[in-house]
Amino acid sequence: MTDKDLTIVDVHTHIYPPAYLSLLRSRTTVPYLLDLPDKSAPPRLIILPSDDDSSIPPESRGRPVDASYSSIAEKLDFMKKHEITTSVISLANPWLDFLSPEDGPRWARTINDELERICSEHRGKLYAFATLPLSASPDDVVAEIHRLPSYTYIKGVILGTTGLGNGLDDPNLDSIWAALEQRQTLIFLHPHYGLPASVYGPRAHEYGHVLPLSLGFPMEITIAFTRMFLAGVFDRHPRLKILIAHAGGTVPFLAGRIDSCVQHERHFPELETGKRGPRRGFGEVVKTNVWLDAVVYSETSVEAAVALVGREKVMFGTDHPFFPPLEEGKEEWESVQTNKAAIRWGQDRLIMGDNAMKLLGLEAPVGE
Amino acid sequence: MTDKDLTIVDVHTHIYPPAYLSLLRSRTTVPYLLDLPDKSAPPRLIILPSDDDSSIPPESRGRPVDASYSSIAEKLDFMKKHEITTSVISLANPWLDFLSPEDGPRWARTINDELERICSEHRGKLYAFATLPLSASPDDVVAEIHRLPSYTYIKGVILGTTGLGNGLDDPNLDSIWAALEQRQTLIFLHPHYGLPASVYGPRAHEYGHVLPLSLGFPMEITIAFTRMFLAGVFDRHPRLKILIAHAGGTVPFLAGRIDSCVQHERHFPELETGKRGPRRGFGEVVKTNVWLDAVVYSETSVEAAVALVGREKVMFGTDHPFFPPLEEGKEEWESVQTNKAAIRWGQDRLIMGDNAMKLLGLEAPVGE
Repeated sequence: MTDKDLTIVDVHTHIYPPAYLSLLRSRTTVPYLLDLPDKSAPPRLIILPSDDDSSIPPESRGRPVDASYSSIAEKLDFMKKHEITTSVISLANPWLDFLSPEDGPRWARTINDELERICSEHRGKLYAFATLPLSASPDDVVAEIHRLPSYTYIKGVILGTTGLGNGLDDPNLDSIWAALEQRQTLIFLHPHYGLPASVYGPRAHEYGHVLPLSLGFPMEITIAFTRMFLAGVFDRHPRLKILIAHAGGTVPFLAGRIDSCVQHERHFPELETGKRGPRRGFGEVVKTNVWLDAVVYSETSVEAAVALVGREKVMFGTDHPFFPPLEEGKEEWESVQTNKAAIRWGQDRLIMGDNAMKLLGLEAPVGE
Repeated sequence: MTDKDLTIVDVHTHIYPPAYLSLLRSRTTVPYLLDLPDKSAPPRLIILPSDDDSSIPPESRGRPVDASYSSIAEKLDFMKKHEITTSVISLANPWLDFLSPEDGPRWARTINDELERICSEHRGKLYAFATLPLSASPDDVVAEIHRLPSYTYIKGVILGTTGLGNGLDDPNLDSIWAALEQRQTLIFLHPHYGLPASVYGPRAHEYGHVLPLSLGFPMEITIAFTRMFLAGVFDRHPRLKILIAHAGGTVPFLAGRIDSCVQHERHFPELETGKRGPRRGFGEVVKTNVWLDAVVYSETSVEAAVALVGREKVMFGTDHPFFPPLEEGKEEWESVQTNKAAIRWGQDRLIMGDNAMKLLGLEAPVGE
């Protein structure tokens, strides 16, 4: 149990707001929402191409999307159960990456308006990360970034790893990075695409989603961030702020090797020409520009994250509504318990909430 | 500087013995050795399909293979410079994976005989990990494993991640695991294949080999080992001993997430059927069956490795002759200095050498 005046902030918690669910329900290609004949059963989200398989019975296809994905009442109830003061909600993947260039900007405004409205009804309890219309032109994305300060409760943007379709080292992203840097808008880098299925081999289906979920996601964001670094994004935009999900994927463990490889590749004469490589070391960029959540289910890994970026740059999160209770009727979720234990719950005010309050400029809940 | 009676063992150090170089020189498809018109320049090893590009000038194609890859005198000189008492040498990738099934067994015997001969000429200074004919039948591989105890200086086997071609969760490997378990032969799991090039994006060539080297290699072995775990290899072979290169790739950082994902996938009713999943937790298997080298260029990561498997199961290594000096004429290699600093050189007798002496049953050098 924790002290009543402790501030607990959850920086990694998702929602599919009603407008987003109707968008998914209106579609017939991945991603889309499939209603079941049994109306009491939750609809299924067909999120991956491999889910879209008519040989799988509808009630087993994709993943169930119950009220925990969209109900604010359930979010607040979850927060209460786990002593969370404030949640910074974000649209769950795949965000708006799949839209046509024309539809992107309108849907981004609709979703961001809806997130703002939800947060305004629970002042100080809920804040949000906005979503960007990345299928649209860079100019449209930049326009949405400049519109965000008109919101009160939006404190950053959630971003996948593909950018405009060619990864986060794409030079066409530069005007977007510049706008985010200028507005000092935090980027929350989040996985969705994983790794090519071939790496998991012919037996992967026997292990459920374990391999893409436990390995593909952290590796995806590690690769995406390292590509950003190698392309010199943080040299051109030294004030960019990025929060990497899942304690950086594997960034804290591989940082030494990345720096060592960069140094040794510089040494090969045939690689010097044409290299525009990063001017600062990887470890230095990470210390300056990177924040990490603590959703990594291990005290060892949280401590490695802290060693990399500093204790004032690691922040508690839950990944709610993913990793639900293992047993029916459980009050506290095991996944949250594991992440609480990993940050020495009740002792570490910085990671529990103070870091997020300061970084995002949050205010305490009103009218409690 | 270290104490004169400290034992320093390098468990991760490679060699291309003369017989292997002649094998590569006799080939015209990847992997092969390309001699240059300028005989004073080292030949080039065309090791990856992407290296085999006639539009690249021969002197820049693949990687140079100078004497540091094959000369025992250079290995001994490197050891002396870095105060290494004993090296456990292993054939560098791609081992014998590329041979025809018929050629595999003969070449494995030739290479292993040559490794034994080399070590016998430097008693106690050199030991070796053998290579296996994995392109041959499982019976041929098993026969080679049972032949290894006839050698004095061979203390385990080096293994890539593809096994017989379908990954380390292939049920056809079971007789091989059984033989390794029965003989208590240590497996040294080492990367070579990396991840599909698509994950690095269209600009990867601008960053040299940084992405495949710094991220692809550690991710490859993490996926390979996790597949072994999920297939229940350590349930069927509970006494199997495996040393994972590069401090486990990313295993120490992702162990908590892997266990959490396994638990949550068990919970999804549609995944329960057909699951033969592991009976022990990932963390438990790692603590029991896994050793890690400390070739990870970071004290934070070595400490995470120690937290995962215990201080008596982490062992110093150099990855010689890879990661050579950054400047001409340097006595001590920067890559080795970084790995020495990461294990608090001069203080940690266990990681520096005592763990390896005990695990592999090594004897101190003779006639020093």
